[in-house]
Amino acid sequence: MKLEVVTIGTELLLGQILDTNAVDLGRELAAAGVEIVRRTSVADRPEMIRAVVAEALDRTGFVITTGGLGPTRDDMTKKEVAAIFNKPLVLNAVVLQSLEERFRRLGRTMPAVNRTQAEVPAGATVLPNPRGTAPGLWVEADGRVVVMLPGVPSEMRGLLAEEVFPRLVVRGGTAGIVVRSRTIRTTGIAESALAERVGEIEDEIAPLTLAYLPSVDGVDLRVTAWRLREADAERRLGTAAAQLRERAGEHVYGEEKTDLAAAILDLLRARTVRLAVAESCTGGLLGARITAVPGSSDVFVGGVVAYDDKVKRELLGVSQTLLERHGAVSEEVVSAMVAGAQQRFGVDAALAVTGIAGPGGGTKEKPVGTVWLAARSGQETRVVKRVFPGDRAEVRARSAQAVLDLLRRLIGKISS
Amino acid sequence: MKLEVVTIGTELLLGQILDTNAVDLGRELAAAGVEIVRRTSVADRPEMIRAVVAEALDRTGFVITTGGLGPTRDDMTKKEVAAIFNKPLVLNAVVLQSLEERFRRLGRTMPAVNRTQAEVPAGATVLPNPRGTAPGLWVEADGRVVVMLPGVPSEMRGLLAEEVFPRLVVRGGTAGIVVRSRTIRTTGIAESALAERVGEIEDEIAPLTLAYLPSVDGVDLRVTAWRLREADAERRLGTAAAQLRERAGEHVYGEEKTDLAAAILDLLRARTVRLAVAESCTGGLLGARITAVPGSSDVFVGGVVAYDDKVKRELLGVSQTLLERHGAVSEEVVSAMVAGAQQRFGVDAALAVTGIAGPGGGTKEKPVGTVWLAARSGQETRVVKRVFPGDRAEVRARSAQAVLDLLRRLIGKISS
Repeated sequence: MKLEVVTIGTELLLGQILDTNAVDLGRELAAAGVEIVRRTSVADRPEMIRAVVAEALDRTGFVITTGGLGPTRDDMTKKEVAAIFNKPLVLNAVVLQSLEERFRRLGRTMPAVNRTQAEVPAGATVLPNPRGTAPGLWVEADGRVVVMLPGVPSEMRGLLAEEVFPRLVVRGGTAGIVVRSRTIRTTGIAESALAERVGEIEDEIAPLTLAYLPSVDGVDLRVTAWRLREADAERRLGTAAAQLRERAGEHVYGEEKTDLAAAILDLLRARTVRLAVAESCTGGLLGARITAVPGSSDVFVGGVVAYDDKVKRELLGVSQTLLERHGAVSEEVVSAMVAGAQQRFGVDAALAVTGIAGPGGGTKEKPVGTVWLAARSGQETRVVKRVFPGDRAEVRARSAQAVLDLLRRLIGKISS
Repeated sequence: MKLEVVTIGTELLLGQILDTNAVDLGRELAAAGVEIVRRTSVADRPEMIRAVVAEALDRTGFVITTGGLGPTRDDMTKKEVAAIFNKPLVLNAVVLQSLEERFRRLGRTMPAVNRTQAEVPAGATVLPNPRGTAPGLWVEADGRVVVMLPGVPSEMRGLLAEEVFPRLVVRGGTAGIVVRSRTIRTTGIAESALAERVGEIEDEIAPLTLAYLPSVDGVDLRVTAWRLREADAERRLGTAAAQLRERAGEHVYGEEKTDLAAAILDLLRARTVRLAVAESCTGGLLGARITAVPGSSDVFVGGVVAYDDKVKRELLGVSQTLLERHGAVSEEVVSAMVAGAQQRFGVDAALAVTGIAGPGGGTKEKPVGTVWLAARSGQETRVVKRVFPGDRAEVRARSAQAVLDLLRRLIGKISS
């Protein structure tokens, strides 16, 4: 089946927040074979919300909205959707009771503003939201459906999984038909160089489509089967993915949402090797990436954020002579940092990063973006210099990804 | 002036990437007094791109697109926009030459696929893109405009600032009229509790609008003036912001995009105090947040990521007895960690975090989300326990924000 998504919130148009709900909805619906044909974002303006939802409903007959269900006055989705369906808002006793109970459990009296959250369009199905105060609402008439979900991401995801999907399955029509993608993740190769290696594969894999998705983590190759029978989609995706993997070769580090940090942890876990890090310009970002992976604690021991040179000396044993002679951003210092981390933490594998993330601190010889990376495994060390494009955040993110990739290539005996 | 934005890319609808361009465009255009009345995202499907851009053009007369200008086959924006304007695609010699030069500088031959990037709709203005291979394009006829920008965020931002804005100013109509917001940032108070404190302020501040924006960092209060004369907007925003600040009181830590980490760094810099951190469950995230702030190196010395208890003992001096008697997630251990960090790094201010980020590791007494936080300044220590909702990423992000806020409240002598 097909539907449209409308995300509501002035903050989305003013660029004040990232629309993570769009990502979650897109991923979950595609996995269920539901195609989002269009996604529209509008501000908290009643006339605009009404126009956009009504147009989407006329085009596609099925609309999911997020946002505008909270207790404050800028939350106006319910009223506009009720108007589209020519229904009044009525106080729902069950919702009111569960709201009051929720506040009682938290030991608080319910603020008066929350009472409006118990109002629903007449005839709407209430989708209980145990994670927050705003329930979801399913309004349906004459074969047209608007599903309203709250804007808080965890609440939206919970309602989608627990209340919306079961109802979509019952509606049928999607049984056996899927929209499905496979993603091959590469790093350490530019988009156009990768395109040359992959070559003119599009005709071979049709009707599947191929997209190149560059980011600070590398270039993902995403192949998509649109509304095919599940078995057919899977077979075609398997063939295409195998071809892409072969052509992209040693630059491939995983598939789907595989994080390179998670891949490295698996690699080390299989060898019962433990890991430590020494970070300067990334300032903790590398450790944060590694520990973002659940279960990382059985491989990752810890790290030193050696922002000040004193910390490089005292906690990592980098000599004052090296720092003075070569500067903190140098092959010599990153080598000493990685050896120091390995020894200090008593581990077999270690990573180190030192560089100039900017915006200040660049020189002609060492411009902003200059980063020295080191990976060590046992007695082997690999050190590379990179000059990354982008701003401070980008240089730091690219550094973390590249040093993880350096360890992958060191262990896999792949050139860097 | 008003316009619509169309972001193009299958990955946007399948939920495979966050639409950061939407954020950048929204923020930059609002700052220039340009109102985005609607933003639509569509897949890399020619007929859909054409329909959506044509509809937006009919409604609003001015459309900015991002994405679909790369060298690979899934990039089809140019062709569809050319069709809307009934113009052929023609090879542009200047673009071709600059592409070839770019590759020559990188010491590589231009891949054949990049040649299509030199094709532009006849009569289009080419917007040079020094950061990448795809130039931006400005197509205008009969008073209708489509501006096509590449999807790579840094290239999009560069073209917007250097090529699009100067042309928008020349077009006029926006002179003196702005869409402007002020944001008051609060943390440590729930949305509905904050709404009770702020009260029924909406009528007082009209025609300005107020929105409550909850996130892992706290609740932002955003007040917006829509298309007012600049002086009028500023005056009204100033009054409204002052009222909001007063009502939200001690929970306010800054305005606009102020990051709490940056605010803390300013506070410490003014006192010539230096800072170190000791992190367990945040695994580097706290250091990464602090060092994301340019210029943090004059205040922030470094940190220890003490993921393994051995690191807590050896690098932070936490005793084995404490760890055994109270467990790593305890008031006693977090107190020892913060004192250890202060002493080890020889600094006046220190922060420590230890907790259970999940998904595993929770017990009945210490469920997932249980976090102990400590802030120390001179001889004073403040320690609090929190049980945060959300998944691993959310618990970690909330922990970093809350421990920074703990130091703010300690220094400011505000209750925690």
